[in-house]
Amino acid sequence: MKQLQERYSLLCEQLEQRGISVDTVKEKLKSQVIELPSWAVGNSGTRYGTFSDKGAAVTVWDRIDDCAEIQRCLGVTPRMATHVCWDKTEDGNYIPVKQYAEEKGLMLGTLHPNTFSGQEFRYGSLCSPIQEVRRQTMEHFEDCVRICRELECTTIGMWVADGTNYPGQDHLRERKHRLYEGLKHLYDAMDPSMTLLLEYKPFEPFYYTTDVSDWGISHLMCTKLGEHAKVLVDLGHHLHGVNVEHIIATLLDEGKLGGFHFNNHKYADDDLILGTVNPMEIYMIFKEIVDADLEGIPTDITYMLDQSHNIENSIQGIIYSVMNIQTAYARALIIDRAALKESQAENDTILSNKLLMEAFETDVQPLIEQVRLELGLSHTNPLLNYRAGGYQARIEASRGAGALTLGGGC
Amino acid sequence: MKQLQERYSLLCEQLEQRGISVDTVKEKLKSQVIELPSWAVGNSGTRYGTFSDKGAAVTVWDRIDDCAEIQRCLGVTPRMATHVCWDKTEDGNYIPVKQYAEEKGLMLGTLHPNTFSGQEFRYGSLCSPIQEVRRQTMEHFEDCVRICRELECTTIGMWVADGTNYPGQDHLRERKHRLYEGLKHLYDAMDPSMTLLLEYKPFEPFYYTTDVSDWGISHLMCTKLGEHAKVLVDLGHHLHGVNVEHIIATLLDEGKLGGFHFNNHKYADDDLILGTVNPMEIYMIFKEIVDADLEGIPTDITYMLDQSHNIENSIQGIIYSVMNIQTAYARALIIDRAALKESQAENDTILSNKLLMEAFETDVQPLIEQVRLELGLSHTNPLLNYRAGGYQARIEASRGAGALTLGGGC
Amino acid sequence: MKQLQERYSLLCEQLEQRGISVDTVKEKLKSQVIELPSWAVGNSGTRYGTFSDKGAAVTVWDRIDDCAEIQRCLGVTPRMATHVCWDKTEDGNYIPVKQYAEEKGLMLGTLHPNTFSGQEFRYGSLCSPIQEVRRQTMEHFEDCVRICRELECTTIGMWVADGTNYPGQDHLRERKHRLYEGLKHLYDAMDPSMTLLLEYKPFEPFYYTTDVSDWGISHLMCTKLGEHAKVLVDLGHHLHGVNVEHIIATLLDEGKLGGFHFNNHKYADDDLILGTVNPMEIYMIFKEIVDADLEGIPTDITYMLDQSHNIENSIQGIIYSVMNIQTAYARALIIDRAALKESQAENDTILSNKLLMEAFETDVQPLIEQVRLELGLSHTNPLLNYRAGGYQARIEASRGAGALTLGGGC
Amino acid sequence: MKQLQERYSLLCEQLEQRGISVDTVKEKLKSQVIELPSWAVGNSGTRYGTFSDKGAAVTVWDRIDDCAEIQRCLGVTPRMATHVCWDKTEDGNYIPVKQYAEEKGLMLGTLHPNTFSGQEFRYGSLCSPIQEVRRQTMEHFEDCVRICRELECTTIGMWVADGTNYPGQDHLRERKHRLYEGLKHLYDAMDPSMTLLLEYKPFEPFYYTTDVSDWGISHLMCTKLGEHAKVLVDLGHHLHGVNVEHIIATLLDEGKLGGFHFNNHKYADDDLILGTVNPMEIYMIFKEIVDADLEGIPTDITYMLDQSHNIENSIQGIIYSVMNIQTAYARALIIDRAALKESQAENDTILSNKLLMEAFETDVQPLIEQVRLELGLSHTNPLLNYRAGGYQARIEASRGAGALTLGGGC
Repeated sequence: MKQLQERYSLLCEQLEQRGISVDTVKEKLKSQVIELPSWAVGNSGTRYGTFSDKGAAVTVWDRIDDCAEIQRCLGVTPRMATHVCWDKTEDGNYIPVKQYAEEKGLMLGTLHPNTFSGQEFRYGSLCSPIQEVRRQTMEHFEDCVRICRELECTTIGMWVADGTNYPGQDHLRERKHRLYEGLKHLYDAMDPSMTLLLEYKPFEPFYYTTDVSDWGISHLMCTKLGEHAKVLVDLGHHLHGVNVEHIIATLLDEGKLGGFHFNNHKYADDDLILGTVNPMEIYMIFKEIVDADLEGIPTDITYMLDQSHNIENSIQGIIYSVMNIQTAYARALIIDRAALKESQAENDTILSNKLLMEAFETDVQPLIEQVRLELGLSHTNPLLNYRAGGYQARIEASRGAGALTLGGGC
Repeated sequence: MKQLQERYSLLCEQLEQRGISVDTVKEKLKSQVIELPSWAVGNSGTRYGTFSDKGAAVTVWDRIDDCAEIQRCLGVTPRMATHVCWDKTEDGNYIPVKQYAEEKGLMLGTLHPNTFSGQEFRYGSLCSPIQEVRRQTMEHFEDCVRICRELECTTIGMWVADGTNYPGQDHLRERKHRLYEGLKHLYDAMDPSMTLLLEYKPFEPFYYTTDVSDWGISHLMCTKLGEHAKVLVDLGHHLHGVNVEHIIATLLDEGKLGGFHFNNHKYADDDLILGTVNPMEIYMIFKEIVDADLEGIPTDITYMLDQSHNIENSIQGIIYSVMNIQTAYARALIIDRAALKESQAENDTILSNKLLMEAFETDVQPLIEQVRLELGLSHTNPLLNYRAGGYQARIEASRGAGALTLGGGC
Repeated sequence: MKQLQERYSLLCEQLEQRGISVDTVKEKLKSQVIELPSWAVGNSGTRYGTFSDKGAAVTVWDRIDDCAEIQRCLGVTPRMATHVCWDKTEDGNYIPVKQYAEEKGLMLGTLHPNTFSGQEFRYGSLCSPIQEVRRQTMEHFEDCVRICRELECTTIGMWVADGTNYPGQDHLRERKHRLYEGLKHLYDAMDPSMTLLLEYKPFEPFYYTTDVSDWGISHLMCTKLGEHAKVLVDLGHHLHGVNVEHIIATLLDEGKLGGFHFNNHKYADDDLILGTVNPMEIYMIFKEIVDADLEGIPTDITYMLDQSHNIENSIQGIIYSVMNIQTAYARALIIDRAALKESQAENDTILSNKLLMEAFETDVQPLIEQVRLELGLSHTNPLLNYRAGGYQARIEASRGAGALTLGGGC
Repeated sequence: MKQLQERYSLLCEQLEQRGISVDTVKEKLKSQVIELPSWAVGNSGTRYGTFSDKGAAVTVWDRIDDCAEIQRCLGVTPRMATHVCWDKTEDGNYIPVKQYAEEKGLMLGTLHPNTFSGQEFRYGSLCSPIQEVRRQTMEHFEDCVRICRELECTTIGMWVADGTNYPGQDHLRERKHRLYEGLKHLYDAMDPSMTLLLEYKPFEPFYYTTDVSDWGISHLMCTKLGEHAKVLVDLGHHLHGVNVEHIIATLLDEGKLGGFHFNNHKYADDDLILGTVNPMEIYMIFKEIVDADLEGIPTDITYMLDQSHNIENSIQGIIYSVMNIQTAYARALIIDRAALKESQAENDTILSNKLLMEAFETDVQPLIEQVRLELGLSHTNPLLNYRAGGYQARIEASRGAGALTLGGGC
């Protein structure tokens, strides 16, 4: 502990030499909010099967309990993002879910409609060539808006899973028209206080075309819809080589960056723990956001996790991810921006890069641990906090083996 | 029909002008054997769910019936490749399966052991750090060899699904040692008449390392094991940009090309119908094989399909795939190789490419349809044959909605 | 020749059975215009060096001669696209170039400004952080508009080569502002009859960010600029896995598809002969264009080649590319669209794909050769036409070894 | 300076708590040797052009001077890797080069033969279908061995640039035979003290096939050749998604890891400064090497840089790269391997990853700066050392603008 204090003091000294206000940095770290995905605390897997975790959440109440425990350890995750299919009572009510969450000290965050779970979605949902499927989907959207009102939730996280598998299967331009019509229906149904976040993904569950395949088409749709529609960036939804931070900068500049689904990937939509594959990328993303914020550009961004903890304990996987987010964000906050601006003005490429890397290479743990103390957490290391807290033993004792999938259909 | 005969005559004329013996080409097409994957005639899907087909096969008997029907339409698919977990009776016997297949005019082809279906495989099977899991896996391999003897099957199609999800999770070199040890156990248990085909795959179901990730490691293992171990190439198991026909040429030259799992992919392991994404690739692969055959290099290759018919009818998807294989193979057989050799000798790059493309662009359907007539099929178009045959209506009437997954565990 | 007539007759029969008017198809093929890139007829290479072709064009007059010879063989390439740096007289005049082209029966097509050739572009051109470089670039744009007027050229093909190599090197949002400002300057300088085509490219010559990196940013800029700005699609400028025909469908639907730079690639911007890597892709692109045309969507698209004939003879490489374009276009024109529409309406995925593939697999050469006869070409095979024509021998005799690069700077 | 000492003391404390001997770590860092690539200190560029640096090296003497200056700043780069075409006197002698290097305190490192620079290599060098080209290449190899003897160099860095651009261009298996024959000729000519390092690369300068395209074919060739042939890994020579540290682990296990060409890439063979794109990757590579070393596996690896400093000052780009190598290596040396072993034994995936990341996130600069002091360097920051040293001003004054390319041919 003495060592931590020494490291913290030294770090403060370093930062102040760079002209960085440690208090401001700490304030930013304390006020960051990361939504927890209700669907990620249960078991999840691949098409080849799911490994079951003892004590994994099965019911919506389990999921709320787990998120509350995560929030106990982290202090920056007061919201649980929900999926409309799973986060309701057995008889289809949402209010009790909200009430229980509040009892546990949680708010409900972004609501995610359903466009993939159900036999009717074989050829898509709002883009389906089957009119009846489109009609049902739009009705479902209306329900979602109503549920948002009930839950006092103002953000809708829209993943249009639609696509085709084979050349010739459907008419691509007509699908685009259906896409817009469906989104417009949802957008028009929304209250003025609500925001539509439109996710993009290059492939999966379909493998020839995906109707909302990249930021370009998501941005195009959001622009047509209006100011309450923004782009949702899932870090795993990019083809190899895509420069994600450049997309982030573009969307910030256009006022169209709405939110994130955080995770890491090495190959496809791997949904791995954030920060384990490419810690540099998430750092560069936060750099762009912090830059924008400092330059007066609105950065009202909804941060969510969206991961699949196939082999590791989900709760710990989520805690670890948030810790990695905090590391990246802290690093982005302590860049010597004055020096960087100067070196950029001189086109001193190497120095500019080095200044970025110096922040990246700084050991920010003492600072983050100090923030956790100031947030009143009982332990500066959230993973150890969880492991020492007895929660895992309790759920293993009280819950069964864990459902292998989140119920079928909606 | 008159038109077909005219087109066939014209094609024969064209081919004979190129010095190609139509009889030889037809003989090759008639004697090609493509194994049908038992697991592909049922329903299959993605991690997001499975769309259920009416009448889809549920039991092993259904699967045999379906394969027999496919063979009725195609005439070049007399074998059904099996998976050790699913293609047995409810009480675990294989002999009745073989007997029923024979009744239906089918032989059993390549046997596929299990390394992924089961809770014990969280950290891998033969590469698992848990000794007990490795022991079980090796025992399972011994069982597989025994089953092969029972089924008079001489080929084992080995997909080692093992891998890790995170840096640091396991010791990579030790995993390689475990991999070899496990494969050696299987190899040593095999009869001299048996061949081990070792598949590779870059990722999925694991996303950081895969123990047999590319042809290089598969070939290395096969070389260490001995002459009865060969590489199994699944067309969907390559990263973007990999030149598959070059790998095929290399493996042929080393005497290590053992077999194929045919399918097409645009993104990851999409398992789409062969020929729908990149018909040029499968053509180039067959070109290498035909070249090798003509030059006296052994081409004792086991051809299998391995696809996932997520949205289309599985039986028809399989029939269509085999038709596309035949198209590619026929094109590869009618290349004007004498002219190509000459143009290559003169480094006439454009002409060489054009000669290849001329074969690719030739409409070979009249030839293939003639082959089907000579094989005694009742229709020259296998898809129409199937659609007109009444089989689909019968299974829809007699079978239920179809199981959504092939039973859990093994 | 008799055989060709027979094949042509049979094909016509087949097409008419599909309800396709052969006359209409031939008319479309005759009226297609593909611009020849002046810069591609000379030598070109990689960063490792350039292989020199005997007789390769060095001067602008050579390039015009070569393009005229290509047009003699093909009949559908009456325009030469120009690059502002190279296609002028030694003392910087453009009018004589136009006059000579006209003498040779050619028009001048799309003019390409310069944003990469010159020491000043180290940090970009219109996106450079150096104000003086931006000013010069905008002045250059004004020159380009003036030159367009002189040449009676109405299309400007704008590749903004700008980008950065390292994280931190420059301010990404500011670069975006500079990009727009520069393009706006050009757009405002243009006459109402002119069209700006804005190309995108994911990387090269810069390797961290590229200012116009994908269709999304190009489309965004064009939308901001106005109706005379459209997207230019270079087939080699896509990351692995991008579905190009889907982008084409989207741009057609938005009225923003301006033109193409045709080529093929397997890895990066390989600039190979079109049709040699993935003939299916170019077919699917033309399918979308023909669909749009038939459905009344404007398809005023500028087709250009942009290839790098590193090892093959450039003139023949270009001729061969255009032949491959014609093959793809012809196939796209003979799709049985009535049947396809019906099968799509029934969600008959396999049949829909098969209908597409039947057109793709049709041997359309007899039709194209007939078109060439009707265009009055002296030979139905343009490559043989070129080889037999004596032109290659003449230029080898009269010209030197060929310059290894197109002069430095502008 | 006081702060540095404090940070160093704190770090030592931390490390010793992990049971890590700081002295051993420092010893490893001091004894690491990174070869400087003679060809990288001059100007280099892309196929679109080269930006010229004032004072950039033109002659071999310049290059030696530059490398000596780099070594003055770094202390771990006592060797200059050479290219046989460029690092000789104007009349083709190598001895004076060696003598001058020695005067400057440098040894000559790995010699790189030529297989790409010259008109004769259009269809390849040792794989060319033209016998005369193959004969010349083999003769050149004999020369290279002779030159190695003269230079007392024991390592040959072999990049076979060969490949083809189009399907059908050449016979792939015959190219493989020619490849082996050519390499065998070189291998047989070598002295027993010499080692052949065989590089692989997926594409460029050829774009259809590359004869040595991946680690698998390089390893296969090296195995056939014998124990003095090993694989050379260039970090930029991998397709997207390839797990490089897994290849490293495999090659170490097979005793076939010969050396590295270090650089970073985001897209293709971008040749960027190491550590700027993906600092995690180089860390994981060094982790595998350190692991192997600690476990008694021979790690006699030749480390080289191979970068293209297109927009930044080359000398500083090289210095910065070596600094980044040292950072990665230092981090890999301070992993708490005892704890990791334990957490792996318990399959504690999250803790295992976290232990890796804790070393990665440790600020190792105080340690590395201490090493530089102990090496007797005049400054702990090599970049500042260079910038303050006056060398850049001297070369700018004394040298011209710098040649834009390294002379043509060999």
